[in-house]
Amino acid sequence: MQELTGYKGQALGLIKSAGASIGDKLKLAREGEIVEGLLMPRVAGGDDIHIVLKLATGYNVGVKISEKTRIQVLGTGVKPTLSRPPMPNATKGLPRVTIFSTGGTIASRVDYRTGAVEAALSAEDLYSFVPELASEANVTAKVLYSLFSENFTTKHWKEIATTVSDEIRSGVSGVVIAQGTDTLGYCAAALSFALQSAPVPIVFVAAQRSSDRPSSDAATNLIGAVSVAAKAPFGGVVAVMHRWLSDDTLSVHKGTKVRKCHTSRRDAFKSIGATPLARFHVESRKLEMLERDLPARGSSEVVCKPNFDDRVGLVKFYPDMDPGIIDWHVTNGYHGLILEGTGLGHVSARCYPSIERAVKDGIFVGMTSQCLWGRVDMNVYSTGIDLQKIGVHPLEDMLPETALVKLMWVLGQTEDSHEVAEMMRKNLAGEISPRRLEISGNDEDH
Amino acid sequence: MQELTGYKGQALGLIKSAGASIGDKLKLAREGEIVEGLLMPRVAGGDDIHIVLKLATGYNVGVKISEKTRIQVLGTGVKPTLSRPPMPNATKGLPRVTIFSTGGTIASRVDYRTGAVEAALSAEDLYSFVPELASEANVTAKVLYSLFSENFTTKHWKEIATTVSDEIRSGVSGVVIAQGTDTLGYCAAALSFALQSAPVPIVFVAAQRSSDRPSSDAATNLIGAVSVAAKAPFGGVVAVMHRWLSDDTLSVHKGTKVRKCHTSRRDAFKSIGATPLARFHVESRKLEMLERDLPARGSSEVVCKPNFDDRVGLVKFYPDMDPGIIDWHVTNGYHGLILEGTGLGHVSARCYPSIERAVKDGIFVGMTSQCLWGRVDMNVYSTGIDLQKIGVHPLEDMLPETALVKLMWVLGQTEDSHEVAEMMRKNLAGEISPRRLEISGNDEDH
Repeated sequence: MQELTGYKGQALGLIKSAGASIGDKLKLAREGEIVEGLLMPRVAGGDDIHIVLKLATGYNVGVKISEKTRIQVLGTGVKPTLSRPPMPNATKGLPRVTIFSTGGTIASRVDYRTGAVEAALSAEDLYSFVPELASEANVTAKVLYSLFSENFTTKHWKEIATTVSDEIRSGVSGVVIAQGTDTLGYCAAALSFALQSAPVPIVFVAAQRSSDRPSSDAATNLIGAVSVAAKAPFGGVVAVMHRWLSDDTLSVHKGTKVRKCHTSRRDAFKSIGATPLARFHVESRKLEMLERDLPARGSSEVVCKPNFDDRVGLVKFYPDMDPGIIDWHVTNGYHGLILEGTGLGHVSARCYPSIERAVKDGIFVGMTSQCLWGRVDMNVYSTGIDLQKIGVHPLEDMLPETALVKLMWVLGQTEDSHEVAEMMRKNLAGEISPRRLEISGNDEDH
Repeated sequence: MQELTGYKGQALGLIKSAGASIGDKLKLAREGEIVEGLLMPRVAGGDDIHIVLKLATGYNVGVKISEKTRIQVLGTGVKPTLSRPPMPNATKGLPRVTIFSTGGTIASRVDYRTGAVEAALSAEDLYSFVPELASEANVTAKVLYSLFSENFTTKHWKEIATTVSDEIRSGVSGVVIAQGTDTLGYCAAALSFALQSAPVPIVFVAAQRSSDRPSSDAATNLIGAVSVAAKAPFGGVVAVMHRWLSDDTLSVHKGTKVRKCHTSRRDAFKSIGATPLARFHVESRKLEMLERDLPARGSSEVVCKPNFDDRVGLVKFYPDMDPGIIDWHVTNGYHGLILEGTGLGHVSARCYPSIERAVKDGIFVGMTSQCLWGRVDMNVYSTGIDLQKIGVHPLEDMLPETALVKLMWVLGQTEDSHEVAEMMRKNLAGEISPRRLEISGNDEDH
């Protein structure tokens, strides 16, 4: 009997009670829920309440057990190969895709939760982990970082942009960037501005659940991301993540419109104020385009402008906010400030003198809305008009996070204040949606 | 012919071309859209591209005109009374409701856009504006402020709480607070904590569109709010606003869970991480309860604890954020700080020393998520565990804005740090949703 690697406690007891060994086909039943699959080993350091099964689909799932779980050996299946499978030979005619790993849940194999992390981003590991990738593309995997995404800085964005640009110049059909979910939206915006005319898809992907969890989205998202990178008819920066709770469809979001909107759900990423560009159907591997007005694949040369200015702040306004927070940015030599105001783009009148000082000091001050959805409009109320007079720039329907990243990027390109203002108010990478025609009595959607 | 009060330019020309006068029944047609109603006067200072019609429903709408608009006089209707209608006599048996006006779009009659604002919150004005109110309740209207809601401070919250508490003690069946939409969510949270055991409904209401606009939600929302205040079977703080784009249903949101999520749509207010408490059906005036586990009307005495501490800050984290922003709060004598972190509740490692200094200085530091939906969980990743070790308190699924207001309120009640922590982590007014049982493989919703 093959050793029950990695199992302990309750899980080990249950497996032993059935006389099962690694590779056997098992049926686990608990309160009406039934899961069948081949018993897989676990890595060290895991808990004792999950049993990992390889399903018929090829995915490994961690099935949570309890005292109510019943176990049954359905058969002694072919023992799985526990050594790495041989690398698939590069398949002629398949597109070349490079996956850059930067850290986060998706880049880890099992038991991220317990700290027993294994970066799984060698190409061999990937093919072992998600063998389906071999039919989508000839994949090369490179580890850039192993970082929690909250620790990313403008320096990392610059390095990623430069690296991805070089990779595209080497002739790949697409690039995938695997990252932690937390600041993925910011980084996708950063690359959207730094690599504006990318001739191939640059696909951000992540996972909300590590692969030892029954509901992991790591494999599905990775398959979708590689497929989009390899075959999508457009160039540019997107993020590919679960569309909803089911595993059947992924959404392809524009890099400047995507936002993490749930702490734990697999469909946490949403396109804000925009429809997703496309849907990826997991079973059929088909890409259903929703937005047709995108730059065609191969229609441009990649241009890399990777500089960002880190002296840009984001201030979320709240009632009774002390304007001293704005002054702090002036005192500390900031070059730009994004306000996340209320409603159509407001802050309290008490903040006006501080904002005026900032503007006089040459700081670009842009207004976005903490509503997240909808467009700022600083011509409706006198408060908006006053703020514009002071020199605050309304930033249309830009997400506050995207506006921050854009201003960091713009100030990395020029110090000329007129140019900065012009670039901030112009749609450069899909960050500003066109205004719809106002139809009397039905202007809810603008 | 009655004077065409308030009309000028294009609108005046169109009306004159038809030989119409105030009170006539008109048909305005433009590209297939047809509106019929009685021609109403406008107040001075309006634009020249809207014609105001009183519809059969009794509402005034401003119809946007263009060169394509065709006008037709259908009949010389009964001339509308332009003087105020007589106050309805208090109807015996109808509940008493007090409406407090604090400013904002809903409190103004016409042409808020142009600055020609008329506060419409005398009871006479209200009945003239929304005559349907007379069948819902005996309404008294009081003007508290005439303020843009972004200028509200803790001082205003305190005054509103005290005033509302006194009004409830005087025996009214319910209270309505008409306010600007921008910081309505913050104020609703403030009253939720300050007046925790209210025996009657305290209903926040607002309008996204002023009443001169064809799509105004002012009248509908006000009818719903007064009806809920008068008749709802529960006590406590709620907000009543459009459920979706149609006028047929309003949502009743819990005061600690409601958030403005669109800059301009009428259904901008959403319950975040919670279902609305009820729906109000406008036509039938029926309240459909969705949440049954609410304190029953009359089951308690109002207790007013109206103090708030304004030395509490909200900091939204972003990549590359300078921890000096956190230090600024320490230096400036803050007592509390809410972090709006990423994902499950993270900030960059670079911020840890500043947070540690804040905690050592006796500042309460609470963690919420900029995802808005979902619950923080600082036990999943080492970064969350590290932050807890430093002394950061995870605040479950509290909205960042609600957490800010709650901390302001808690620090207004006690300076004892253990009590503060205990109160912050306890559900006091529905701000923390109960955790659902984690079901293996389907824990998307917690």
